[in-house]
Amino acid sequence: MRRQPAGQQRERIFIEAGAIVRAAEYLKEHAENSELFVLTDLNTHLHCLPILSALTERKTILHELELPAGDMSKNPDNLSRIWGWLTSHNAGRKSLLVNLGGGMVSDIGGFAASTYMRGIRFVNIPTSLLAMVDASVGGKTGINFNNVKNQVGTFSLPYAVFIDPRFLNTLPHREILSGYAEMIKHALIFSEEEWNRIRYRSIPDSEDWTGLIRNSISFKSRIVQSDFRDRGIRQSLNFGHTFGHAYEILSNEAEPDKVRHGEAVAWGMLAELYLSVRLKGLPAGVLEDYVQLYQRLYNTHTTGIDPQRLIRKMYSDKKNITGSVRPVLLRNIASPEPEIISDDILLQKAIDFANEASVSEKV
Amino acid sequence: MRRQPAGQQRERIFIEAGAIVRAAEYLKEHAENSELFVLTDLNTHLHCLPILSALTERKTILHELELPAGDMSKNPDNLSRIWGWLTSHNAGRKSLLVNLGGGMVSDIGGFAASTYMRGIRFVNIPTSLLAMVDASVGGKTGINFNNVKNQVGTFSLPYAVFIDPRFLNTLPHREILSGYAEMIKHALIFSEEEWNRIRYRSIPDSEDWTGLIRNSISFKSRIVQSDFRDRGIRQSLNFGHTFGHAYEILSNEAEPDKVRHGEAVAWGMLAELYLSVRLKGLPAGVLEDYVQLYQRLYNTHTTGIDPQRLIRKMYSDKKNITGSVRPVLLRNIASPEPEIISDDILLQKAIDFANEASVSEKV
Repeated sequence: MRRQPAGQQRERIFIEAGAIVRAAEYLKEHAENSELFVLTDLNTHLHCLPILSALTERKTILHELELPAGDMSKNPDNLSRIWGWLTSHNAGRKSLLVNLGGGMVSDIGGFAASTYMRGIRFVNIPTSLLAMVDASVGGKTGINFNNVKNQVGTFSLPYAVFIDPRFLNTLPHREILSGYAEMIKHALIFSEEEWNRIRYRSIPDSEDWTGLIRNSISFKSRIVQSDFRDRGIRQSLNFGHTFGHAYEILSNEAEPDKVRHGEAVAWGMLAELYLSVRLKGLPAGVLEDYVQLYQRLYNTHTTGIDPQRLIRKMYSDKKNITGSVRPVLLRNIASPEPEIISDDILLQKAIDFANEASVSEKV
Repeated sequence: MRRQPAGQQRERIFIEAGAIVRAAEYLKEHAENSELFVLTDLNTHLHCLPILSALTERKTILHELELPAGDMSKNPDNLSRIWGWLTSHNAGRKSLLVNLGGGMVSDIGGFAASTYMRGIRFVNIPTSLLAMVDASVGGKTGINFNNVKNQVGTFSLPYAVFIDPRFLNTLPHREILSGYAEMIKHALIFSEEEWNRIRYRSIPDSEDWTGLIRNSISFKSRIVQSDFRDRGIRQSLNFGHTFGHAYEILSNEAEPDKVRHGEAVAWGMLAELYLSVRLKGLPAGVLEDYVQLYQRLYNTHTTGIDPQRLIRKMYSDKKNITGSVRPVLLRNIASPEPEIISDDILLQKAIDFANEASVSEKV
């Protein structure tokens, strides 16, 4: 599996209000036999496909496959369903798959496309903030397997990504907050300047997203380019995710989609910033600032999960080598560093801190 | 899915009697936590694993997953089974999968490894002649899907390939013949010198395989390196496979493993050499020589399949764009060239010729 992205090592990313118009032009140009394969979920079927559809030429045939909304759809059955759908419509090596949706759609769609006939082209049109700043760029595709998130997949770049902030107008506030957590994460691990901007401001109006999204993606792109296959520095993007993933999975096992990915990461960053102060000498003020931001933006609630179960889940996370938990912590803003922890008491303290900080007005 | 093999663009290939000993040394060196994951089928479980097992250190833990023998095992269920097996044994990013078997094992094993955690290392130890000269090298992995051979998969190079001709001693003659067809194919598309050697000789004794296999692989490797993703010249390896695949699938649909892959390709080359004479001006003498070789080596039988069904199957083959059949034909020995055919009568004539040449002593 020794492979790297070829010549042009970046996907082409278009970020602007009206990017969907540009997407339609691009698709017109690149559709094979005037046929497009569009993967959606219920939400994008209702709210986004009609917009794309109205912009495409009349002669273009849009084949659509709609998956049930939610991260649970990233499973082997749906992967086979996409392969079968492409096969039944005689999709060929030059066919183009359009992933119109959030991270679920681009993750499983990208995986299906990168393996169908050993790889056909795909394009991402992210419709959630989370997908715009995270899932749709960087070339990680995959599905969940045996309760492990993104356990199988490929590293495969989309041919192009079209980010139209206008899609955000249709999103519930909670979805916006979920994506915003990844933007906060990008600021914390990459840029003190961005962090100082973001930690005081409120959630922007729809008009103001373009610049913020562009910044957030530029941080991620830089790191992805230098470590496409996630063997080193790219793992800093995992900040907040060691605790966040465990919380997300256990919570949603009991009640599907109870917790949004970004909500879990926002909570995970509480725990991991706490550990950063304890183990890496991160100034306590940063933790305090983050707690304030968290309390201002996110609904305060405890995980409601036995900390011991969270700890066991972290031990079985794919990013960990047996017998330890390996979060990325911060020495300072923009100074991420991997850490190895096998001290259950310390892990428990971090969870307790995060739970307490979630519910108290003051910590 | 824009990717290419990284820095070292060739898998390391060891070809020698006793390569299995070298394999054991290599695995000792590269096993993560002294654990190896070995994929087998019933035959290699019985005949080959004990040999590998005896050579590995006592402290090495061999996890084995045995798939049912035969090409039918290259399916999505078994792909999930491998992912699940790796997951349940906590295989990590640095784990190593050993594909010990024929093409079925290395195809599905390579696919599973190249997608598990977005790609772990794998090593091929081919145990059939077919896998030695074809499937185990070149980096094509995959499974069959909806009755289309290798419909999904990846381009992923193994870290190393260990080819030990001694394994051929345990193979039934029919399996040898199946692999030999691909060697004949390599000679026809790459080297007049090799063709002139091969067309007169009989199947070698086990001691004589090393040089022949080395030649055959060197032809293939050269072409794979210049076109890893199969966008151009690599398609010449498809010679004999347009007709052969259709025959193989339809035949085995009715009766699993009735026809071996190489047998089908040997028959397919009859049809495609016929077309080469008709459409490309291939000297008729080459066709005659091949018919003689075919009759000398292969059991003579007709496909027993309605030619119209074969033609329909070829139209739906993934290598064809809608509405035509796209075989690779020969202008001459070592001069392959793609062709586009939409003339059903001509296709039928080629099938009739191949069937007739298969059964008559003289054509």
